[in-house]
Amino acid sequence: VRLLSLARDLRRRRARDRQGLFVAEGVRAVEELLRSPLTVVGALVGPHLDATPRGAQLRATLAERGVAVLDVGDREFASAADTDTPQGVLAVAEVPRRTPEALDLPAGARLLLLDAIQDPGNVGTMLRTAAAMGAAATVALPGTVDLWNAKVVRGAMGALFQHPALSLTWEELDAFLPGREVVLWGADARGEPVERAVADAPPRLAVVVGNEGAGLSAEARGRADRLVALRIAPGVESLNVAVAAGVLLYLLRA
Amino acid sequence: VRLLSLARDLRRRRARDRQGLFVAEGVRAVEELLRSPLTVVGALVGPHLDATPRGAQLRATLAERGVAVLDVGDREFASAADTDTPQGVLAVAEVPRRTPEALDLPAGARLLLLDAIQDPGNVGTMLRTAAAMGAAATVALPGTVDLWNAKVVRGAMGALFQHPALSLTWEELDAFLPGREVVLWGADARGEPVERAVADAPPRLAVVVGNEGAGLSAEARGRADRLVALRIAPGVESLNVAVAAGVLLYLLRA
Repeated sequence: VRLLSLARDLRRRRARDRQGLFVAEGVRAVEELLRSPLTVVGALVGPHLDATPRGAQLRATLAERGVAVLDVGDREFASAADTDTPQGVLAVAEVPRRTPEALDLPAGARLLLLDAIQDPGNVGTMLRTAAAMGAAATVALPGTVDLWNAKVVRGAMGALFQHPALSLTWEELDAFLPGREVVLWGADARGEPVERAVADAPPRLAVVVGNEGAGLSAEARGRADRLVALRIAPGVESLNVAVAAGVLLYLLRA
Repeated sequence: VRLLSLARDLRRRRARDRQGLFVAEGVRAVEELLRSPLTVVGALVGPHLDATPRGAQLRATLAERGVAVLDVGDREFASAADTDTPQGVLAVAEVPRRTPEALDLPAGARLLLLDAIQDPGNVGTMLRTAAAMGAAATVALPGTVDLWNAKVVRGAMGALFQHPALSLTWEELDAFLPGREVVLWGADARGEPVERAVADAPPRLAVVVGNEGAGLSAEARGRADRLVALRIAPGVESLNVAVAAGVLLYLLRA
């Protein structure tokens, strides 16, 4: 029963921060979690999980891995679930303690920095994109939705469990980038064409993308060594931030 | 009152197809609609639209443009709205009659083809991306969510009103591409690296992207002259389809 109230509680960011735990919901997310190095604390299972072969298999895997499973009714499951049509499984796991010092940053390393990105779907997609493009890390800066928010976890489709994603304050970022010889570039529609900048890309490069409506914050703008832009057609306001981040990471890949 | 029942009815694809009408909901969508060449049939306004200066301005613009406005209560508005927290304005407009014959396809034209893309958010983002990247058209192929679905309209952020987006069957596509000298390439993880193919890009190129889970359909695969892939890190399953489409369109732009 404690697992049920814990899962409910973890829907709030404050509870996640205090407990160092988060919830991964749905068959796919829990499967990915079990394939990752993260520590799983327990799982909540609704009455319908065993109705599909994949769900039944997942229950077997949970048992094999020695994860404590609490079976609950539909109403209890729904009270802890984040989705409208729950698949009947969620797992509580430990938020990995990732520090910038521990990041592996060889020559050619690329980092994606999220400056006040508010849509959890966009953040999830960008984590998946950064992982797919071999980025060394994704950093959530102030104003960005919590990386361990249920919708971000779902949208990242497992990328969050393997790819080094972490949250930093601006001061923590300042303390970290120069010492590791990471140069910061900002994505901004008024910047120079990225095609021109590609040839000058430094060995270690962080690209910061800004808020969906407001663009880069003053904090990001003030810290960026260079502002780069994608060519877009006249009369079109902007690209979706996850698409823009994807194109930039792809072009700037070493 | 007819406008209220019409707006409710238009939430169903069949009603949209039969009537040749669709709904744009929210302040921004209606503003974009009024800036577009599309014909607006009428607008439904809830009691709170005038509470913001932007909302009040929009009501004034509707009046100036001679659009019939029906004022309704919160409950009535909610019964026609697609969003959970409606902004109190929606407009009914005519679906533009776009034909492939009318498309302007100069040398360098690029088209984005959507093969059974089911998520309306992805389709909306891709319409916005195609418009931003100067694509000549976006074509929704069978199995793709209706372009005039309320969530697609919202996600496209106006792109749907200006950018030539249309739905075609495979037979209609077959009747159109060769006559206009448009070559079809497919996006597929097992294809050749797109970087290698860029130099060979034909004057008129259509890129087809496939379903979120299943990838390209047999129909798309069979028609593609070439399959191209983005380089992604080992161990990562795939990119989000809207991100992949964005990178491909950017790289293949003439």
